[in-house]
Amino acid sequence: MRILVPFEATRPKTRLGPLLDAEERTAFARAMLCDVLAALLSAGHDPELVTTARISIPDDDRFAGEDIAGTVDDRSLSAAINDRLDAAVDTVAVVVADLALVTPATVARLVAAGDDADIAIAPGRGGGTNALVISQPDFRVDFHGVSYRDHRQAARAVDAEVSVVDSMRLSTDVDEPADLVEVLLHGEGAAASWLRDAGVELDTSGGRVGVRRTE
Amino acid sequence: MRILVPFEATRPKTRLGPLLDAEERTAFARAMLCDVLAALLSAGHDPELVTTARISIPDDDRFAGEDIAGTVDDRSLSAAINDRLDAAVDTVAVVVADLALVTPATVARLVAAGDDADIAIAPGRGGGTNALVISQPDFRVDFHGVSYRDHRQAARAVDAEVSVVDSMRLSTDVDEPADLVEVLLHGEGAAASWLRDAGVELDTSGGRVGVRRTE
Repeated sequence: MRILVPFEATRPKTRLGPLLDAEERTAFARAMLCDVLAALLSAGHDPELVTTARISIPDDDRFAGEDIAGTVDDRSLSAAINDRLDAAVDTVAVVVADLALVTPATVARLVAAGDDADIAIAPGRGGGTNALVISQPDFRVDFHGVSYRDHRQAARAVDAEVSVVDSMRLSTDVDEPADLVEVLLHGEGAAASWLRDAGVELDTSGGRVGVRRTE
Repeated sequence: MRILVPFEATRPKTRLGPLLDAEERTAFARAMLCDVLAALLSAGHDPELVTTARISIPDDDRFAGEDIAGTVDDRSLSAAINDRLDAAVDTVAVVVADLALVTPATVARLVAAGDDADIAIAPGRGGGTNALVISQPDFRVDFHGVSYRDHRQAARAVDAEVSVVDSMRLSTDVDEPADLVEVLLHGEGAAASWLRDAGVELDTSGGRVGVRRTE
């Protein structure tokens, strides 16, 4: 299946500023992107990168030799995706690039949910939408605001049957320092390794588990 | 299957203090407990309440006429559960009482994961453990600290095969105001209704989706 992977290339992951500087945020965001692309490829799908600015795909043994399609689109995320939905003739999926916990098995569950319904939605924490599989030709996305609720309403408006994917891995997009706890505990790829190499580790000194840097 | 449901009856959900007073926190915690008990019963299992103090099970049409077993145990959560594991002769599950998003289908996934391994674990956000299915007689729990990591280690120490349940619903224990966003968006039971009746609603005025009270 064709799976769009939108990626904010210019100023990624600004909310990680308390822990990582701009260059580090860029490197970490690319590590997460690589994990997502590797999981999609390993699950047998065709990722298509949609970036806000031209980037080079980092070297990664997991997809050496694969030809990953990519286009630059500096419009809003929703406009860029909807433009591609306008032109699509078959099922299209969207998977955001900061799902550092995604695995091939998670991708398989998402795609299976899409097989069973007109629209599959994987909600993110806090009302977001982290992945969609769209087989209904009139459905369009809007990632602004409480997009999970809005996508449910948009599906109803075009009489599309919805399947919701109940996955902690798909629900965990990585935006804030607290989200790094999940990457350290459950991540199996380049993003988790990158964090450990940067000296980011669990901090269990407070009431809640957090993260801290040791270097 | 016998499923232990530990419940802090004395001062539940103190971290919801910014939004709910003590009496409201007690009522909301009981609404979540009812949702968990109803989901377990509907999935065909035998919930067994383990409370820190005597409570009366609230009236709830979903389990009218069911005889829900309950015992009082004022020791720590881990000690209370381990005492019951010491005495168990068959598989025992543990499901925490603040999983306001749990559904019968989620319970079925948890139990199925337990069928496939010696130990099934459903991680909570932030390194916690929200549910376990324990078929290995030597495994004991420790809910303190980063219990997900500790339970994985404890399973390795007794050569137990582990299955991890990848569920947003099981990963969402409700402790803090931000968690109420998930209850309002994805909850289907008494807890979500209780929040709405109390005037708690989504707040989309800031950068992240939050909650606010209107009354």
